[in-house]
Amino acid sequence: MNIPDKVVNRLTMYHFILEDIRDDEKYISSTKFAELLNIDNSQVRKDLKYIDNQGKCRVGYEVKTLKRKIEECLGFKKTKDAFIVGAGNLGSALAKYDGFKDYGLNVLAMFDKDIKKIGTVINGKEVFDISKVGNLASRLDVEMAILTVPREYAQGTANYLAGAGIKNIWNFTTCILDVPKDVKVWNENLIGSFLQFTNKDKDE
Amino acid sequence: MNIPDKVVNRLTMYHFILEDIRDDEKYISSTKFAELLNIDNSQVRKDLKYIDNQGKCRVGYEVKTLKRKIEECLGFKKTKDAFIVGAGNLGSALAKYDGFKDYGLNVLAMFDKDIKKIGTVINGKEVFDISKVGNLASRLDVEMAILTVPREYAQGTANYLAGAGIKNIWNFTTCILDVPKDVKVWNENLIGSFLQFTNKDKDE
Repeated sequence: MNIPDKVVNRLTMYHFILEDIRDDEKYISSTKFAELLNIDNSQVRKDLKYIDNQGKCRVGYEVKTLKRKIEECLGFKKTKDAFIVGAGNLGSALAKYDGFKDYGLNVLAMFDKDIKKIGTVINGKEVFDISKVGNLASRLDVEMAILTVPREYAQGTANYLAGAGIKNIWNFTTCILDVPKDVKVWNENLIGSFLQFTNKDKDE
Repeated sequence: MNIPDKVVNRLTMYHFILEDIRDDEKYISSTKFAELLNIDNSQVRKDLKYIDNQGKCRVGYEVKTLKRKIEECLGFKKTKDAFIVGAGNLGSALAKYDGFKDYGLNVLAMFDKDIKKIGTVINGKEVFDISKVGNLASRLDVEMAILTVPREYAQGTANYLAGAGIKNIWNFTTCILDVPKDVKVWNENLIGSFLQFTNKDKDE
């Protein structure tokens, strides 16, 4: 089933909320989600229809079931292995963040071209020479790279990754990558995110 | 004018592309944007209507004018001052990233409760004791905080920031914050972003 991006995003946030529910609370209402996320109640109910979950009248959604269904629907348990390419500030911060694993993202190793970084280990992830990425990608069957190199190296690195068999690039740089058709890029546009926030602020 | 979030996001990416255009290229076509971002040509033209920019038939959009109009429209020059709250891995990585400034985000200082971090300076930004946030916010007229504390401290810190006069929280944690009505939260949901990417991959 094709779930729209915005719905995937909200389902994840419903899951964050469910994580914080006290053990003795068995049910949660759509109103609770709506209030915390500052969205319409009807939006919540529409979103939750995607995961085939029935809320009970006056009682709400059963917390454990809803949590499990979101996990199944979004594939938290189907682990995706990935490399972090660029062991700078952001790459290292992402490598040190253990939360990804709970949602199915498993970072196996890091890559850089800086000889001072190669061989170091960041939160259990070894930093390898970028020239080894193709070899390790095929040996470990990794198709996903998280790109955190400086902007000016982004396109060159993307070319290299494409040649090394990487099929999915989660791009944290502000360079829009020109890649072969069989490589998918997901732009993590923090600048755009900030501008969405501030432009919203301006309107009100 | 109210520009939809997705359009703001894409306008930012058009700007990234314009940044990389060679000096001798005066014009750019909507097709070029569309190909690089893997979206429809018609989408690009629709987006660019928001910023009142006329493309010339067969020639395309004038690079310099388009760039300037995007900057004006999204307010790159209207600097927003902000604090980073949480001087851990992600907070420090964001503090070290100088690119934000070009898009209007100016980080003035950082806050933490860890005595080992207080007094240190990260990329020119001093780390202050979190108890000073209210005082500095009112003295420097700062209303925006970038929240990068560990998940378990997120709600407590948000309560504290709300009490200290912060009106906008850019939330990088996976805790959905319960804040007073006059405080706006923008959830930077990296987990959701990853799941959008991988769920798209699954569909195709």
